[in-house]
Order: sequence, then C-alpha cells, then structure tokens
Amino acid sequence: MTDARDLDGLEVGYDIPARPGMQVSEVQTPALVLDLDALERNIEKMGAYATAHGMRHRVHGKMHKSVDIARLQQDLGGAAGVCCQKVSEAEVFVRGGIGDVLVSNQVRDPLKIDRLARLPLLGAELQVCIDDIANVAELSAAARRHGTRIGALVEIDCGAGRCGVPTPAAAVAIARAIEAEEELQFCGIQAYQGSMQHLATHAARKASADRASAMVRETLDALTASGLDCELVTGGGTGSYEFEAASGLYNELQCGSYAFMDADYGRILNADGQRIDQADWENALFLLTSVMSHTRRDRAVVDAGLKVQSVDSGLPVVFGREDVAYVKCSDEHGEVEDPDGVLKINDRLWLVPGHCDPTVNLHDWYVGVRGDRVECLWPVSARGKAF
Amino acid sequence: MTDARDLDGLEVGYDIPARPGMQVSEVQTPALVLDLDALERNIEKMGAYATAHGMRHRVHGKMHKSVDIARLQQDLGGAAGVCCQKVSEAEVFVRGGIGDVLVSNQVRDPLKIDRLARLPLLGAELQVCIDDIANVAELSAAARRHGTRIGALVEIDCGAGRCGVPTPAAAVAIARAIEAEEELQFCGIQAYQGSMQHLATHAARKASADRASAMVRETLDALTASGLDCELVTGGGTGSYEFEAASGLYNELQCGSYAFMDADYGRILNADGQRIDQADWENALFLLTSVMSHTRRDRAVVDAGLKVQSVDSGLPVVFGREDVAYVKCSDEHGEVEDPDGVLKINDRLWLVPGHCDPTVNLHDWYVGVRGDRVECLWPVSARGKAF
Repeated sequence: MTDARDLDGLEVGYDIPARPGMQVSEVQTPALVLDLDALERNIEKMGAYATAHGMRHRVHGKMHKSVDIARLQQDLGGAAGVCCQKVSEAEVFVRGGIGDVLVSNQVRDPLKIDRLARLPLLGAELQVCIDDIANVAELSAAARRHGTRIGALVEIDCGAGRCGVPTPAAAVAIARAIEAEEELQFCGIQAYQGSMQHLATHAARKASADRASAMVRETLDALTASGLDCELVTGGGTGSYEFEAASGLYNELQCGSYAFMDADYGRILNADGQRIDQADWENALFLLTSVMSHTRRDRAVVDAGLKVQSVDSGLPVVFGREDVAYVKCSDEHGEVEDPDGVLKINDRLWLVPGHCDPTVNLHDWYVGVRGDRVECLWPVSARGKAF
Repeated sequence: MTDARDLDGLEVGYDIPARPGMQVSEVQTPALVLDLDALERNIEKMGAYATAHGMRHRVHGKMHKSVDIARLQQDLGGAAGVCCQKVSEAEVFVRGGIGDVLVSNQVRDPLKIDRLARLPLLGAELQVCIDDIANVAELSAAARRHGTRIGALVEIDCGAGRCGVPTPAAAVAIARAIEAEEELQFCGIQAYQGSMQHLATHAARKASADRASAMVRETLDALTASGLDCELVTGGGTGSYEFEAASGLYNELQCGSYAFMDADYGRILNADGQRIDQADWENALFLLTSVMSHTRRDRAVVDAGLKVQSVDSGLPVVFGREDVAYVKCSDEHGEVEDPDGVLKINDRLWLVPGHCDPTVNLHDWYVGVRGDRVECLWPVSARGKAF
C-alpha cells in the first residue's frame, strides 16, 4: 500500500484526486474509485474457488496494473503470482516485490528480450510465452548473457486466432527446442481463449471452451508421445474459469476482471441465466463523475469522457440508477439522459466503465473507499507501461 | 523543449521510448512519433491562413496536451494562446509558460473554481466559459478571494446540443451578470460546433456552419441591443475553420487536430472533394508498432492495442502501405491482415491513429523525428490531467 508520506507535496485536483481520510463527496472528479469491501469479497471468492477446485490462480495484472492489488490478491486470495502482457509491466511488478511473474505474451524485440532476461536478477521467478521456434534461441542467448534462467510456455492458439501455434506438431517442436536450451525451462502450455470470454450465454462459452480443451488435450497427447513432461496448463478468464476448472486439463487460472467487474462483462449470463454482475461478482470499480452543465432540461453533461474511459466495449452504465442514462461520450464530456430533469450541477454519478482494462490504464490513481470515507490512494503502478 | 538532461536516469524501454540522437529504427514500440517536418509545415500553414484572414488563432491544447507544441504554435504559427478543457490542463500550460489560456468549458466544482481563480497569480491571462448564470457569482467570489480577474465568455449552443445556452436571451442575461461583477470581464462568445467537424462533405459542414453562424448573429444582435459590447467571437475546428473565417462574425479560431491529423479527420473532404489528409494537412502523428507474432501466414499481430490508442472513431490506418491493413484491436494486440505474408517479426508499421486527442492522452512521450533520426523527446505535459 502506498505510504501516506508518498503523497506529501501532491496537490488534490492536480496530482491526485483525493487524500486518505477525506469524505467520498470531496473526491475530485473524474476519478477511478474502488469499493474496497466489494473488491475484497471478489478476491476472496475467486481465491476460494481456485482452492476448492485444486487450481493455482495466477491473477492477471494487465487488468489492474497495480502492485497493491496484486499483493491483496496474494494475501486475501492466495494468488500464486501475476501474469501480464508487457516486459515493462513485468518490471513494475518485480520491482514492486511480486516474486512470480508470467509474461503471457510473445517478446521479440531484442531490447525487450534483454530486459526480460535481466529480471530474474532481481529475485523473481520469470516465465514467458513462445509461439515461434526462432524465439527460443533469442531468449536463451539473452538469459546466457545475464546468467539467468527463464521459464518458457508454448502458447497454443485454442480458438482466438491471434497468437499461439496452430498445431500440436508445432507445439512439440518448440517444446523440444526449449528443452534443449540450458537457460530455459519448459514449463507447459499457455492456452487462453480470449474471444470466447464475452459470449453472452453460458452454453455458447462452454461450447467454445470445449473446443479449446480438445485442442489442449491433443497438444498434451502429442507432448506426452514425444516424451515431454508438461507441468503446467494455464489459461482461463472471468468468462470461462469454470470450464477450465472442470476440464481436468488446466491446473492454473489467469482471471483478471472478476476483481473489478465492468459493464461489458457484467452482461454475460451464468449457468442459471443470471447476469454475472448480479449473481457472481460485485462491481468494485467505478468512474466517479460530476454534472458540469445542464442547459437542456432532459440532458445533463458530466465531466467523464473518452480521456478517462475506453468505450471500445460500449458506454458506461450509471450504477444504482434507473432514472438517468449515459448516452454519448466525447473527448471530455459525457451526455446523460435525464428525462425528468432530476440532476443538478455538481451531482455525482457512479459509472461502471464499459471495459475495465483500458479504462484503468488512463488513470494515475485508484481512490480506495470504504463506506463514505477515502481509505487509501493506490498508484496505477504500471499505467502506460506498454513497451 | 525538454532539456536532454531531464532525460538522465530514464531508461529506454521502461520510462522512455527513445533518446535524442537514436535512429528511428531503435525507438521502442509502441511509441507516439511526430514527423517534425510535417508538424512544422502544418503549423506554419494554419498560422498563415489565420493571418491572411485577419483571425487570431488560439490553438486547442486539449488535442496535444504539450507545452512544447503550444510554444511551437506560438513561434511558427503566430498562435495567440491556448485553449483547453480542464483546469488541471490550464495549470500545466500556465506553469509551462503559456501566458494566455482559455478554458473552453464550464467549471463548476468549488475546488476547481478556486484553482482556476488562482491561475492569474502566476502571470497568465485567463478566460473561462459560462453557460449558467449561477456560475457567474461562483467565479467572481473565487476571483475576489484571490484578488484576481478572470475573462468570461458566454458559451452558446450553436448546434452540438451539449453545453452552451440555448437562446440569445439567456446569453444576454449571463453577459449582463458578468458585466456586473468587478472580478470578471465579459469578453465575448464561445461558439464551437463540435458535432459538424467530422461530416464527410464540405457542403454538409457548410450547411451546419451556416446554421451555427445564424445563431451567433442572433446572439450578437441581442447583445448589441442590450448595450453589451462583444469583443470576441471564438470557435471553429479543423473541419470548419474556413466557414468561421468567412462568416464575418468570428475573430478567433480554435483549431487543434490540423497540426497532427488522424484517420477519422483525414477522411473528410475539402471544397474540391479531396480528402483533407491528402490535400490540406499532412499526417504528422504516428503510432509506431512492431510485429510480435505471425503464426498464421495471412495475419500478423502487432504490439499496439487499446492501451496505446483510442478506437472510438475507428481503427488506425497503416501509413504508406496498401498491402497490409490493421483490422482488429484488443487490449495489447493489433491484428494486421497480411494476405501475401510479407510481414516479418519485428517489422515496423506506422499507424495513423483513428482519433488523435484520446490517443495522445495514453502516452507519456512524443518522439520527435526528422528523417531517420530522433531529434527530441517531448513530454505529453498534460497527459491524464482530467480534473
């Protein structure tokens, strides 16, 4: 947690949106607010789920980009470590004291490979994904230069059609090449199917997850037939973790969004046909915004636009209100339908962002609140770390 | 310009994407790159246009959020000052030495009003927009507390339907209230019509601008009839500046995107039916990205996704290439159609972002390049300043 002394000299309204101890009504808007009670309950619940199903949980740090939240996930949720997508993110987590980090992505640029290979020198266990056999020699050469050892997972394309090898034979070839390198350790398979996570129905997600699992099984069979031991099968997200847990194949989950929820994920339905943001996970992340113009009786303008949220997955939803709706987003403004003209200047609305990951990345700080009091301010530690 | 010494201790690939003196091929991706020659030509051209048409040009700093670029616009383009949308942005520009700043937006929160009223103490001329008569007393009380004076513009809704008063009578009432306050100076009218800027054809934009001008004229007539002197009529953007210049009503332009261009603005057509990014303004802003996975022959994956660009106005366009196309954007990845399989790992693509303003706001640095050499690194000074 950020020490309060770290905030000395920072100005509310310029550098930071609030100070610990303030009333929530005093937070400067627009601001990213965490309901700490809801966050903790989500983290505990997913931790208990993973434990009950005999799975490790490697939480996805790309979602929150926060060392403080990763630590909370370790402490309250028993998380086994963090995954992230960029070398610069991994550097933030390792420097912040997270001891076990997987870059669940390919690293091909020579300088990025070199930085990655140096990270174990800071005392971290480090893993990375590979989907091209040429990458094996690049990574081992860098590790050799620095006298380090890197864990390597073969990423398979299990249906998303983006990164990952397309065939079991290609996975076997890369795994063999990894095994042949002194500085690399073959750890297993990365099999995350991103495109299924947001399918609306449980049945559609299950069908997609079953196809992914079939590909994982084929790959495992091919590895076994080649005498290769696959210790880890890792993947799964907030929309699919039940299927990976039930597969009998995966032994590590990589969920991220469950901790915060967002409007787009919230709409998907669980096995009982209930929205997951009503039945399974609480909204813990909010974009607090204020009304700053209201010249038309039926439409208010708020101070949260495109520069404080990503609308790639839809507009934000106004939390806890049926009487007003966020209907249009421009650079610095949001337009809110207010048919009964109930909103007043400086009224606050709690928005649930459409998509949590890219929204978080626009902010420098999380304002952690409990009830009506600001309890903590956490930096978005890896904000902007895209290298 | 950032002094090279300011970069001491910053690591390439972690803190910064490049250092001055590097080859462009060494820039770490994804990075925001400025073609300095193109940027300077755009700035000079708009400056010459404004001068030739007897207009002041108050450049829109919300677009670039950069003190360095605002200075360049003053030095090369004769800009009369900066406008921006947030008090925290205005603070960045004033602290950075920009002496004339308009907050082209409403400021209603008490702490923000207080901060705004203190800005003239730093030696800046400061203006703000008002669309609610209650705001007049709020602003004057704050200026009185700090012994400052604030210029005030009445914002009129001239067709965008967002902020701004809807009637000339409301504008007159606010202007009168401003005139009655010792600490405020009534400066004129803010009349920016944002929603017309991106209409595809010149004729459609002209029709919309004509409607806006008619409303400006009505408001001016009402002010004159009430004995109020309206010194300034300010507004206009990259899609409409010709119409404001020809109106005989406006005397100040507020263009922003012309300096960088983006894919969405680039598609609009000028009076000759030519795309403005081919005939009028050069692409000066690029998102440099690298291929980092290519397991399918016809599709490459690049390292620029939603966390380094805003796709609210469409996907980015690959600059200078017809053989490949950016077709899908996820959090950290972009998928590029490569039908002939010509792309190789670590190949670089120059993307023209779909929408420059919210894309810039995701980055900490501009890499200024001339030819194949990195010439400067400029901070995105007001990045994240959304308060």
